Amino acid sequence: MRPSQRRPDQLRAVMITRNFTCHAEGSVLVEFGATRVLCTASVEDTVPPFLRGRGQGWLTAEYGMLPRATHTRSAREAAKGKQSGRTQEIQRLIGRSLRAVVDLSALGERQIVIDCDVLQADGGTRTAAITGACVAVHDAFRKLVTEGKLPYSPLREFVAAVSVGMFQGVPVLDLDYAEDSGCDTDMNVVMTGAGGFVEVQGTAEGATFSRAELNALLELAESGIRRLVEAQKAAIDRN
Amino acid sequence: MRPSQRRPDQLRAVMITRNFTCHAEGSVLVEFGATRVLCTASVEDTVPPFLRGRGQGWLTAEYGMLPRATHTRSAREAAKGKQSGRTQEIQRLIGRSLRAVVDLSALGERQIVIDCDVLQADGGTRTAAITGACVAVHDAFRKLVTEGKLPYSPLREFVAAVSVGMFQGVPVLDLDYAEDSGCDTDMNVVMTGAGGFVEVQGTAEGATFSRAELNALLELAESGIRRLVEAQKAAIDRN
Amino acid sequence: MRPSQRRPDQLRAVMITRNFTCHAEGSVLVEFGATRVLCTASVEDTVPPFLRGRGQGWLTAEYGMLPRATHTRSAREAAKGKQSGRTQEIQRLIGRSLRAVVDLSALGERQIVIDCDVLQADGGTRTAAITGACVAVHDAFRKLVTEGKLPYSPLREFVAAVSVGMFQGVPVLDLDYAEDSGCDTDMNVVMTGAGGFVEVQGTAEGATFSRAELNALLELAESGIRRLVEAQKAAIDRN
Amino acid sequence: MRPSQRRPDQLRAVMITRNFTCHAEGSVLVEFGATRVLCTASVEDTVPPFLRGRGQGWLTAEYGMLPRATHTRSAREAAKGKQSGRTQEIQRLIGRSLRAVVDLSALGERQIVIDCDVLQADGGTRTAAITGACVAVHDAFRKLVTEGKLPYSPLREFVAAVSVGMFQGVPVLDLDYAEDSGCDTDMNVVMTGAGGFVEVQGTAEGATFSRAELNALLELAESGIRRLVEAQKAAIDRN
Amino acid sequence: MRPSQRRPDQLRAVMITRNFTCHAEGSVLVEFGATRVLCTASVEDTVPPFLRGRGQGWLTAEYGMLPRATHTRSAREAAKGKQSGRTQEIQRLIGRSLRAVVDLSALGERQIVIDCDVLQADGGTRTAAITGACVAVHDAFRKLVTEGKLPYSPLREFVAAVSVGMFQGVPVLDLDYAEDSGCDTDMNVVMTGAGGFVEVQGTAEGATFSRAELNALLELAESGIRRLVEAQKAAIDRN
Amino acid sequence: MRPSQRRPDQLRAVMITRNFTCHAEGSVLVEFGATRVLCTASVEDTVPPFLRGRGQGWLTAEYGMLPRATHTRSAREAAKGKQSGRTQEIQRLIGRSLRAVVDLSALGERQIVIDCDVLQADGGTRTAAITGACVAVHDAFRKLVTEGKLPYSPLREFVAAVSVGMFQGVPVLDLDYAEDSGCDTDMNVVMTGAGGFVEVQGTAEGATFSRAELNALLELAESGIRRLVEAQKAAIDRN
Repeated sequence: MRPSQRRPDQLRAVMITRNFTCHAEGSVLVEFGATRVLCTASVEDTVPPFLRGRGQGWLTAEYGMLPRATHTRSAREAAKGKQSGRTQEIQRLIGRSLRAVVDLSALGERQIVIDCDVLQADGGTRTAAITGACVAVHDAFRKLVTEGKLPYSPLREFVAAVSVGMFQGVPVLDLDYAEDSGCDTDMNVVMTGAGGFVEVQGTAEGATFSRAELNALLELAESGIRRLVEAQKAAIDRN
Repeated sequence: MRPSQRRPDQLRAVMITRNFTCHAEGSVLVEFGATRVLCTASVEDTVPPFLRGRGQGWLTAEYGMLPRATHTRSAREAAKGKQSGRTQEIQRLIGRSLRAVVDLSALGERQIVIDCDVLQADGGTRTAAITGACVAVHDAFRKLVTEGKLPYSPLREFVAAVSVGMFQGVPVLDLDYAEDSGCDTDMNVVMTGAGGFVEVQGTAEGATFSRAELNALLELAESGIRRLVEAQKAAIDRN
Repeated sequence: MRPSQRRPDQLRAVMITRNFTCHAEGSVLVEFGATRVLCTASVEDTVPPFLRGRGQGWLTAEYGMLPRATHTRSAREAAKGKQSGRTQEIQRLIGRSLRAVVDLSALGERQIVIDCDVLQADGGTRTAAITGACVAVHDAFRKLVTEGKLPYSPLREFVAAVSVGMFQGVPVLDLDYAEDSGCDTDMNVVMTGAGGFVEVQGTAEGATFSRAELNALLELAESGIRRLVEAQKAAIDRN
Repeated sequence: MRPSQRRPDQLRAVMITRNFTCHAEGSVLVEFGATRVLCTASVEDTVPPFLRGRGQGWLTAEYGMLPRATHTRSAREAAKGKQSGRTQEIQRLIGRSLRAVVDLSALGERQIVIDCDVLQADGGTRTAAITGACVAVHDAFRKLVTEGKLPYSPLREFVAAVSVGMFQGVPVLDLDYAEDSGCDTDMNVVMTGAGGFVEVQGTAEGATFSRAELNALLELAESGIRRLVEAQKAAIDRN
Repeated sequence: MRPSQRRPDQLRAVMITRNFTCHAEGSVLVEFGATRVLCTASVEDTVPPFLRGRGQGWLTAEYGMLPRATHTRSAREAAKGKQSGRTQEIQRLIGRSLRAVVDLSALGERQIVIDCDVLQADGGTRTAAITGACVAVHDAFRKLVTEGKLPYSPLREFVAAVSVGMFQGVPVLDLDYAEDSGCDTDMNVVMTGAGGFVEVQGTAEGATFSRAELNALLELAESGIRRLVEAQKAAIDRN
Repeated sequence: MRPSQRRPDQLRAVMITRNFTCHAEGSVLVEFGATRVLCTASVEDTVPPFLRGRGQGWLTAEYGMLPRATHTRSAREAAKGKQSGRTQEIQRLIGRSLRAVVDLSALGERQIVIDCDVLQADGGTRTAAITGACVAVHDAFRKLVTEGKLPYSPLREFVAAVSVGMFQGVPVLDLDYAEDSGCDTDMNVVMTGAGGFVEVQGTAEGATFSRAELNALLELAESGIRRLVEAQKAAIDRN
């Protein structure tokens, strides 16, 4: 049915590799099937001007795609001299999603900068990025606690994300590139480990969607995110 | 209860003034209370390179805010030399929303460029912009039909948008600036006149939201959009 | 004679609407016939770096044109990433013209930022902008006085502007777009209410102009500006 | 009286050195006292898109200032990534001034690009630039005629420019930097060899100016430009 | 002696992993110790304008560093809106080095775009990039040959690069970050498999260097590059 | 043999004109045959942020080419909005070369900004720029000493640069444009007056080069630079 041969409610193989690179306080390679995103969390000892002297921290995110992460090469944004609207939309979404689960007051006057760079793209790069970034932020906070800079981790809950869509009339989970191109409705859902919604972004492609379809998609997303949070926890428990 | 004294399910006064400026093929001033957006639709006889020679049209949108549309002056994007991430996010949303109700094949090799410029901002500028742009596009198409350039209008349905949010635990409709700042959840919903969803974008601010809250917000939005489509039709019937 | 059927020394209908938008300290819609410019004056409590600590104020201006203010759509400067040479020339002119009538020492360490945005263009946008901006600045100063922040208004005189040109050998006043395109000489004149020249910018288009022609044009401009200053005063007297 | 000890109607020493550099079709170093501008005219065999296939030519100009042409170093525009408003205003003026004396139809589908680069600045760089550029254009046209590419030179007349100003109540000619800083009114005048005005740009600095002052300044400018045109002709006659 | 405990003439462990990502025609992860660079070679069916219709190909390179490839986070070039001088210098070097060993005529009207993106930096990123890019280009050409698009590979020779430097008076090979910071002279050498020099770039840091030192450094570089070319060949022979 | 008719080891005529412009602390026009570069050294009383409060100075360089310094006009970098990779590479080289001979501690918290602007190009602009800049820096330092701001000049040695190349199998010195285009190997060498190497940058064009060729080129460069340093000294001794 699905180009990927998966069942409608089946995630792709999820791999979360911690400490993928050595310099960042948190560094995670997250894989949703063939989609691979390197997520790093960097701790900086200053906050943006609008927060200075207010005793609280900040978290922001940037997103990029290597030029040949895609089927055909896309122009390098650094060479073009600007980030596309799509890039900005995604990095704003990643930042909001992580801020929703971080206690910024407990962080003190520090900034966490998340960088999500897509090494290989096959659909779902933004949902993989949020899922991986959460683990990178967890690791960066653990390091601050270990070094005695924070009494406890400001990460209140896990957060993860997945895409869902209507493919030939059937709600399907975790779309790869081929499925995404053939979908009528495409939705990205971000939820916490406790089951609260952080973001719901549904877009009609071609046909509009009904309340019933929306409900079916949200249910599918909830079940997928539960499994992604388990994968996050398993990765963290591994050492 | 609400800072605006409105009932939870009450829209602000909606005004749709057609032919607000004289050069554009469609030109509409839309007002949602104190929010005022000038929406123009321009017809161009060329399409972007990726569509040339394929016999179909395109529709794209740009969004801007006059520097002093807001409480304190914001820097002019033309002077800063780039559009913010927020601006790009909004103009991409407007474009997708309108393309969802336009038959691009019936348009021929033409491009519709929508410009939504906020003259005065009091919350909900993007939903007002979508609602006004639909009427501007309608008028531009009517002009093409009147001039004999198209046999019928490629506008398949009306489309309108409204914001909803959880304000102190109560779902409320059509947030103004003061309410938006005090909301826990903020959602923008775009629907067609026939009741199909085009876009659903919900964001947790502070606390996450539950399925029950989401459902309540969607119901409120549906009822609001039905009334906005009536306002669009009334404006069009006026001449 | 004139495409507009006006007498050579006849201004277009001038309309000055104060408080056109609600947030700015001064907000004026000025209309010279079909040319409509929204002029706002914003009061900021800081001055540019080169003036800090010197106890005096500053006034600067920015100018923009909505993409479809013109017959055919012009590209949005914010999207192109830079302001054109024409835009910069005009905003520098507006700033100089207003600074000529403002007592910057009496203003204290504050900056007035004028924004002139053309909603609809039919020739003479820069002269309308100067004429409207003067009223907006007046209103912003009155507000500072009313709030007790200034003992008296730093506006020393009114300032207004008009275009004149040689049309088929005849000096004509206040050119609209059609007349401007057909003119041999095009001149913009800025004067104070007391009759002093602030700016005189004459440009030969096609043929050069003589001293006699220059004199005739200046006389026409003087008479036009006298009437514009009356219109400014009448607008202010209206409430 | 004048900081420069010159009589009110005295020009600075004017030097026009042709063939100052070897590659350009016209290359002139023009000196007005300590102000030194290198003006080159380049012939290109294409015209801008808006003129293609119309059988006529175009002329455009660019202006720049070496970073240390001035008393204190100014930032390099190429490093800042944009040209200032002042630069754009000046290069637009140079282009208009030269186009006023060139028969663009007689030029054929060619473009003349004028580059005026200030090696040393002491006031009046734009007027020196126009005066020097005219000779560079003359030389480029002579080359086209000599090579048999044009039957006659499309330069219809000479054009030159000078600044005038009110210095302590006295109209003075050809302001250097010290005088310019101390002037109440500053005017740049561009005229043809035949005595027609091409541009008149007068600006009040501090006090406004009267018709009588304007007249006195224009007379002074006319006499100065007559002498500058003589200097242009003498330079051309030298070989 | 060396911070890395290596002998003066010892390379770091070199790893060359082919097919690291799946979309590019050639995709190689190259590791020089802790330095890791992803090098992809993309085949495009067009050439830059200056080569169109001349029946030959082109090869160009771009270089980037992920923001947290380094000890402390560096700003993302795409977000800053421009590539640094260092980035441009490196990507120009990579392009020249590879063009030196590619028969551009044999390539036909195609362009090879090399992207070298540093995932983790510990000194020598540009030399690792050249060494890895050569294998990526080899693989892309093999693919063109396998698909019957080219009769033989246009890669004439291997090319590899290494850094050498004077560390506390001793010439050392393949500097890591700590050694690079402590070096008096830093030299990057690019050579072909046949032993010809492609680039020699030596820079004095602190003290200048003598001919004798230069000679010692070049000898060291030659022996290192011989071993790197062996590593390239071994990687290619592995499948 | 050589297009220029020079012997293989013959420099072009070298001219060093001091005080070429009047505002800069050091201002030198350097000519290598038809190549003419204006080099100014400006003294600024601040240092870049990364050096503040550390009691030492800095030196940086910028490079530019007038649009018509070349055979055909090149686009103005200020108008294009960015400096090319080539420009950045050259200005970084000039800065490094001069910093190698300046005692930055002895300079105090001051910055020297070197501007090298090419008025006319005929090959070797970067080597001429370094050679001229050294004299400009010398003059700026002499001025600081004369004014009592420094006890002695922080210029420790002279530095000069020359290009060498393999032209039809023969090593030749100081390439002009025609020779540069026909060279197989092109090398730029920067040396101090005491004979130490500062930079060696050799690039294969077409064929690679051998150790023997490299040695011959370096010898030629050494002899050329000795003569350039003599020319620098002679220029300084002239007054």
